[in-house]
Amino acid sequence: MAEVKVIGSWSSPYTRKVEMALKMKGVEYDYIEEDLKNKSPLLLQHNPIHKKVPVLLHNGKPIVESMVILEYIDEVWEGPAILPKDPYDRAMARFWVKFIDDKCIPAMWKACWSVGEEQEKLKEEAKEALKYLENEIKGKKLFGGDKIGIVDHAANFIAYWFPITADFVGLRLMTENEFPNLYRWADDYCSDTFVKENLPHKDGYIAILKTI
Amino acid sequence: MAEVKVIGSWSSPYTRKVEMALKMKGVEYDYIEEDLKNKSPLLLQHNPIHKKVPVLLHNGKPIVESMVILEYIDEVWEGPAILPKDPYDRAMARFWVKFIDDKCIPAMWKACWSVGEEQEKLKEEAKEALKYLENEIKGKKLFGGDKIGIVDHAANFIAYWFPITADFVGLRLMTENEFPNLYRWADDYCSDTFVKENLPHKDGYIAILKTI
Repeated sequence: MAEVKVIGSWSSPYTRKVEMALKMKGVEYDYIEEDLKNKSPLLLQHNPIHKKVPVLLHNGKPIVESMVILEYIDEVWEGPAILPKDPYDRAMARFWVKFIDDKCIPAMWKACWSVGEEQEKLKEEAKEALKYLENEIKGKKLFGGDKIGIVDHAANFIAYWFPITADFVGLRLMTENEFPNLYRWADDYCSDTFVKENLPHKDGYIAILKTI
Repeated sequence: MAEVKVIGSWSSPYTRKVEMALKMKGVEYDYIEEDLKNKSPLLLQHNPIHKKVPVLLHNGKPIVESMVILEYIDEVWEGPAILPKDPYDRAMARFWVKFIDDKCIPAMWKACWSVGEEQEKLKEEAKEALKYLENEIKGKKLFGGDKIGIVDHAANFIAYWFPITADFVGLRLMTENEFPNLYRWADDYCSDTFVKENLPHKDGYIAILKTI
């Protein structure tokens, strides 16, 4: 029995970033696919509060919330750093992770699944948040500098899942014209050999979208 | 010129937890009171995204978001630890901080300032979240164990600001009968000599509430 397990969903950006962090560190783990439409007793036992994936089980002890898991992985295992080493850079990284999680992703996702006035409001909210990210990535290859870091992982939804979802529902929000630097970053991030291997297949993800 | 400055608001639980963390570490700092009804160019310059207090300035570099600041303080300065040392305990502390910030405080605060059906919904939401905290603090002196830690600071609003606010607006939400352990914890936290010295005066805070 492996000491490390991930309870996840293959199409979830949150699960993928945890798996990528473990792989970056060279940690072997067992992967347990969760059926989100019929949640397992295992998931409910280990994440009784949020009932969400991913859950990391380390020697039987659960850790939940993807960014809490990423900090944990960085602290427990050797290997390439996920957070920067310098305390100020770490604070900035934590700031952007929180900003992406709180301000960008919820508005972007909800904008995909709303209509009319509500959608317009969410689009504006998302664009306002994305402008700060656009400005932050200007002149940088990746949020983590030259190497993929915690902010790049935090933004993985913006790079890969969102464009597919927006295209699927016919939403124009993050255009290349308005967000040239974010576009270029998303391309760089998704073209990275390691990242590319760890993204869900587009057709499979679209099949999931059709069931929403 | 001191190398450490805090831009804050004296009645803000977020400002107070940052000040307490600096004091615990024995860090000297200059305090700059912000007028939240007429925000200063200094605040807008250093926290252009959220435009909120507190802001920590360290050698001129700004750090924002109170929990990001607390992690920074813990990493930069020696002295009593704010986060636990063990990685699993750190992960649990980060989980609870996020839970309190995301699930407890917003519902509790909004419940104070809403009415009718909306208030009932928010009360239920807050109570559901508080039950998890009630369960977590059962059998423990403090969230941090025997010593005040990051989760206790994260929950300072629940211990001190909320009961005063709820009483002021006439809201019954966190009763001693329903939440005996949280009640006992709040009492222990607020009775701590160091914490007590660093809480805003009740009458002053009520005067602020009267202007809302």
